[in-house]
Amino acid sequence: MLHFESDYLEGAHPLVLERLMQTNMEKTPGYGTDCYCEAAREKIRRACGAPEAEVHFMVGGTQTNATMITAMLRPYEGVIAAESGHINQHEAGAVEAGGHKVLALPHAEGKLSATDVDRYITDFYQGPSWSAMVAPGMVYISHPTEYGTLYTLGELEALSAVCRKHHVPLFLDGARLGYALASAGTDVTLEAIASLCDVFYIGGTKVGALFGEAVVLPRPGQVKQLDTIIKQRGVLLAKGRLLGLQFDTLFTGGLYMRIARHAIELADKIVRALKEKGYRFLVTPQSNQLFVVMENRQWERISAQVGLEVWEYPDEHHTAVRIATSWATREEDVDALIGML
Amino acid sequence: MLHFESDYLEGAHPLVLERLMQTNMEKTPGYGTDCYCEAAREKIRRACGAPEAEVHFMVGGTQTNATMITAMLRPYEGVIAAESGHINQHEAGAVEAGGHKVLALPHAEGKLSATDVDRYITDFYQGPSWSAMVAPGMVYISHPTEYGTLYTLGELEALSAVCRKHHVPLFLDGARLGYALASAGTDVTLEAIASLCDVFYIGGTKVGALFGEAVVLPRPGQVKQLDTIIKQRGVLLAKGRLLGLQFDTLFTGGLYMRIARHAIELADKIVRALKEKGYRFLVTPQSNQLFVVMENRQWERISAQVGLEVWEYPDEHHTAVRIATSWATREEDVDALIGML
Amino acid sequence: MLHFESDYLEGAHPLVLERLMQTNMEKTPGYGTDCYCEAAREKIRRACGAPEAEVHFMVGGTQTNATMITAMLRPYEGVIAAESGHINQHEAGAVEAGGHKVLALPHAEGKLSATDVDRYITDFYQGPSWSAMVAPGMVYISHPTEYGTLYTLGELEALSAVCRKHHVPLFLDGARLGYALASAGTDVTLEAIASLCDVFYIGGTKVGALFGEAVVLPRPGQVKQLDTIIKQRGVLLAKGRLLGLQFDTLFTGGLYMRIARHAIELADKIVRALKEKGYRFLVTPQSNQLFVVMENRQWERISAQVGLEVWEYPDEHHTAVRIATSWATREEDVDALIGML
Amino acid sequence: MLHFESDYLEGAHPLVLERLMQTNMEKTPGYGTDCYCEAAREKIRRACGAPEAEVHFMVGGTQTNATMITAMLRPYEGVIAAESGHINQHEAGAVEAGGHKVLALPHAEGKLSATDVDRYITDFYQGPSWSAMVAPGMVYISHPTEYGTLYTLGELEALSAVCRKHHVPLFLDGARLGYALASAGTDVTLEAIASLCDVFYIGGTKVGALFGEAVVLPRPGQVKQLDTIIKQRGVLLAKGRLLGLQFDTLFTGGLYMRIARHAIELADKIVRALKEKGYRFLVTPQSNQLFVVMENRQWERISAQVGLEVWEYPDEHHTAVRIATSWATREEDVDALIGML
Repeated sequence: MLHFESDYLEGAHPLVLERLMQTNMEKTPGYGTDCYCEAAREKIRRACGAPEAEVHFMVGGTQTNATMITAMLRPYEGVIAAESGHINQHEAGAVEAGGHKVLALPHAEGKLSATDVDRYITDFYQGPSWSAMVAPGMVYISHPTEYGTLYTLGELEALSAVCRKHHVPLFLDGARLGYALASAGTDVTLEAIASLCDVFYIGGTKVGALFGEAVVLPRPGQVKQLDTIIKQRGVLLAKGRLLGLQFDTLFTGGLYMRIARHAIELADKIVRALKEKGYRFLVTPQSNQLFVVMENRQWERISAQVGLEVWEYPDEHHTAVRIATSWATREEDVDALIGML
Repeated sequence: MLHFESDYLEGAHPLVLERLMQTNMEKTPGYGTDCYCEAAREKIRRACGAPEAEVHFMVGGTQTNATMITAMLRPYEGVIAAESGHINQHEAGAVEAGGHKVLALPHAEGKLSATDVDRYITDFYQGPSWSAMVAPGMVYISHPTEYGTLYTLGELEALSAVCRKHHVPLFLDGARLGYALASAGTDVTLEAIASLCDVFYIGGTKVGALFGEAVVLPRPGQVKQLDTIIKQRGVLLAKGRLLGLQFDTLFTGGLYMRIARHAIELADKIVRALKEKGYRFLVTPQSNQLFVVMENRQWERISAQVGLEVWEYPDEHHTAVRIATSWATREEDVDALIGML
Repeated sequence: MLHFESDYLEGAHPLVLERLMQTNMEKTPGYGTDCYCEAAREKIRRACGAPEAEVHFMVGGTQTNATMITAMLRPYEGVIAAESGHINQHEAGAVEAGGHKVLALPHAEGKLSATDVDRYITDFYQGPSWSAMVAPGMVYISHPTEYGTLYTLGELEALSAVCRKHHVPLFLDGARLGYALASAGTDVTLEAIASLCDVFYIGGTKVGALFGEAVVLPRPGQVKQLDTIIKQRGVLLAKGRLLGLQFDTLFTGGLYMRIARHAIELADKIVRALKEKGYRFLVTPQSNQLFVVMENRQWERISAQVGLEVWEYPDEHHTAVRIATSWATREEDVDALIGML
Repeated sequence: MLHFESDYLEGAHPLVLERLMQTNMEKTPGYGTDCYCEAAREKIRRACGAPEAEVHFMVGGTQTNATMITAMLRPYEGVIAAESGHINQHEAGAVEAGGHKVLALPHAEGKLSATDVDRYITDFYQGPSWSAMVAPGMVYISHPTEYGTLYTLGELEALSAVCRKHHVPLFLDGARLGYALASAGTDVTLEAIASLCDVFYIGGTKVGALFGEAVVLPRPGQVKQLDTIIKQRGVLLAKGRLLGLQFDTLFTGGLYMRIARHAIELADKIVRALKEKGYRFLVTPQSNQLFVVMENRQWERISAQVGLEVWEYPDEHHTAVRIATSWATREEDVDALIGML
């Protein structure tokens, strides 16, 4: 049985595990005050071209989204997101549990457009009763999106410009950021993200770490006492070095990008094969997640041999499935998959 | 200058004020434990044909909605509402501030359909990752809706059946309930609402009271310690009798329905005149709120003499406005308005 | 049967009611944007000697406390209060429901001391793990306190100085403020409060209004978009003028202070009588609430003729009761009460 | 430099790490649905003598406390805890951020007494205004306590009986549970805890795991849809198997108890030495945390060579410090420490 259900099927990149082994019996202070966290922060600042950036390590995506959104919004503010955004769909209402509304806008293949955001905020403040409504206090995007698609640099610049015009921070969910940055077609770099966004995170869980997300605030001091908020929300890891060590490893010698590229190369290989075989894509494939439409009978046959995630049923005769590669995917498995398709 | 902006422009029906005067210097215990509250509760139970009903008095609509929704939902549940629902638009995120997501469904002239609700809940539990999503825990409707439209008895029965099938309470926001019940065309009675809904409220603020909403739970014991929740949310009035006295007056001698009918008769008169004059309605007029489309130049002329609420701009040449009548509207003002249109 | 249980047994001062009658059929815009609210705001600003003050009208005390505390605290902050403070005891956890901890300090007859507050905040930031703890973000006091006692001007100045030293706002709950200001022995004026506190409210519910509290922020702009927060928390009254009219009346011709003095004079009369008869007080009587210790047999006899609130049982032979006068108390009732004691 | 600051200075027990290595490239489904989580759950059920128990894995203590307390309380309920309880002091207001008050009671060396809890709840419901107050909805204890002390079986039975009498669940925070169970003097077993508590957790972070807490609900079905609540609060680990693998390892071949006993034996050795040398203890030493009072000059000398946590300053001449051993403490370090004392 092959498995392409998701990009979090395995543990961590061997170098990450090795590092945990080597340092296991060292004694370090807790809660992220250790030297490994500091080293990782410094490397991330450098990779982002943001020497002043605040970097905070968290354990997983939902908690990172909810913590940063709650920390940065005032009580009467909500967060604009694509209707398909992870925070609007698959986080069990974590944003609302923190007291804030997700202001869902239409999307194109998972992406928000600067024009839509601009119009929404402009119209909001021109409406007669805006002061009785949830104010747009932040814009949330994911890159890659939940559909694996990527913003272009132009799109990101436009979104950033709209956000700055309206004095609303731009938050980029980078749970799979490596796979976006490693995409062959992208013109968006980590430095660009750091210069265009007000807060974003570099996903580790899906890109080589056992777990962990590195939140970057390129301009420090935006959130007062974020450490206490992180503690309050149960996000602070006692043995904080576990996060520091992992990110320090991933940001040493270009490991993060190297393993992300591996996933992208294999995804591209699958895309080429699928196109040759005449498969239709639900959305344009751009990173490590591919959404493919199959006839139900085809899917029935394939599903006996390969684990894939069923995404939706476009009509009664078709099934759309997700194929995900990761840093851990083996080329021989990709070849076997292609053979079966 | 005439005023038809809303149904809360004036104070209270004179009989209500008179009652407050008469009893002003009486000494009663606080927090709704007085004899006037008890008398009002009993009259409301009788009017609803629900002798066991719990009746709680609150001050305003937003607080009533947020309190009852928060009181009845579990942390992981959200509330289904029409996209146009008051809780989704004009309550500044009060439901989310209480920790819950509004699950917005499409609407037809402000109404939710039983079919849509059934499909949403059914699909939800058939989806692969429903346990990572906000569960539909309640259905919220308003009657009349925010567009002044009314559910038919058949529609309400269908919604109620869907809710009971899925074990989800049905909550009816009756901020303008009198105007729904008094509508000439309706087949929905207060008894029907009490038998079909799990919680609803009878609006006083817009129907003859200075302020106040009477929440009815036809089957008692649904919410443990609701009194404490009401206190916690700052909803409990120290001089609770002010609410009791108002509802006792409104539910004595059929006052509530009589004054509601007055508003409806005048609204109907305006509708007839508008139709004769060839005006187009944004939505079918059914109760005391009329949504009329005017050419901009027409509206410019009229707005110099009559206060109306601008609702939206259907296109660049037209303005949709709301005309609202109430228990306090004078026939001579209606005639003057008709003269101007 | 006489009634001295509380200061919210009756309706409103006749002049307040009369004003509601006179204006009843006037048409005004909603949500506090009417001319009566504006007039009342202006009169309150003048009475406070704070020409720039923001004034917001709310309905009741619990909602006012919870709204202002939530509006002014950051997520990681709590509010310092006397252990006996209303927000810590009798508001059903409203502050916590808004996400904040009440940091309870010891009290002397209901009062917080500047020294205790200073030590608490100083120690807090000297502690090793303060960043994992709830930060003191506000100081809450009530004046009169829940025990009817009063801060002296010196005490209030000291508290204010401590708060300013630590950059923590001082919030004064004035649910019974009139009775504090009218006390014979006090040197605290409304102007002093406005200059020493960052936010406070002037209670109407217990001092002549049907209901209503006027929140004063002497230096405007402290809370961004407070209007939306007020709406979100269900505190905004549709017919906002009801609050404006009441406070406008109370602040015209010195009515608020005049009726408060009435309550104080009658309370003082009772105090003199109780002292003559040798009663012991649980706390020093200073305003309109008197806490008297009786032998159980005495209380048994008296309770058949007078309604008083049982406060606590100091020991098995004694009962402490509260006697409250108000703007509405009649001198003949006071004389009758004295006769029975 | 020696380090005895805490019991979370190192990584994980080597067997735990080895297991993570061995299984690193296996592909398993996410979110705790894998075979390792299931195996761990089964072993924990067996160790608890609770074959029906629900077992949920979480990452850290603060999040576990806040999640379970929020999940089990109704909106108007608070949680009784010792004034010194971790949730009342060092979790940055996480319980309040979830909407609930911590009802702090006095403690004896960190322990709550059944008598105090019984009196508090009994008095609460006998008070005149309990329905306007936060209801005691849960009792939280920690075992060992924050002072390293242990409940006896008798004390735990008494607390359990009081909780059951009042229909209030008993929650035991077992962040260091291993060190309680391994204590030489204890008569409290894991089975006893499972039979006396309604919810508790077995701490991994401080007892051999990299991180992780295993929440046990001995009688299943107490919390509806806990999985969704766990997701909503950001507690659900994508690679849930990391938790399963660690607990599976710790509960195989008695590892958890064996490594806990190691910490206790070394702590006992330190206690004996300290007693011989005439040191005074701040609280009776009972598990792996020792609170020792030193003269300031003594502490100055020692602190140059050993890392210890300063706990408090009993007076100006003394410093109380915490010495913590753990599964990872080496006997030679203990001997060196003893040499220095």
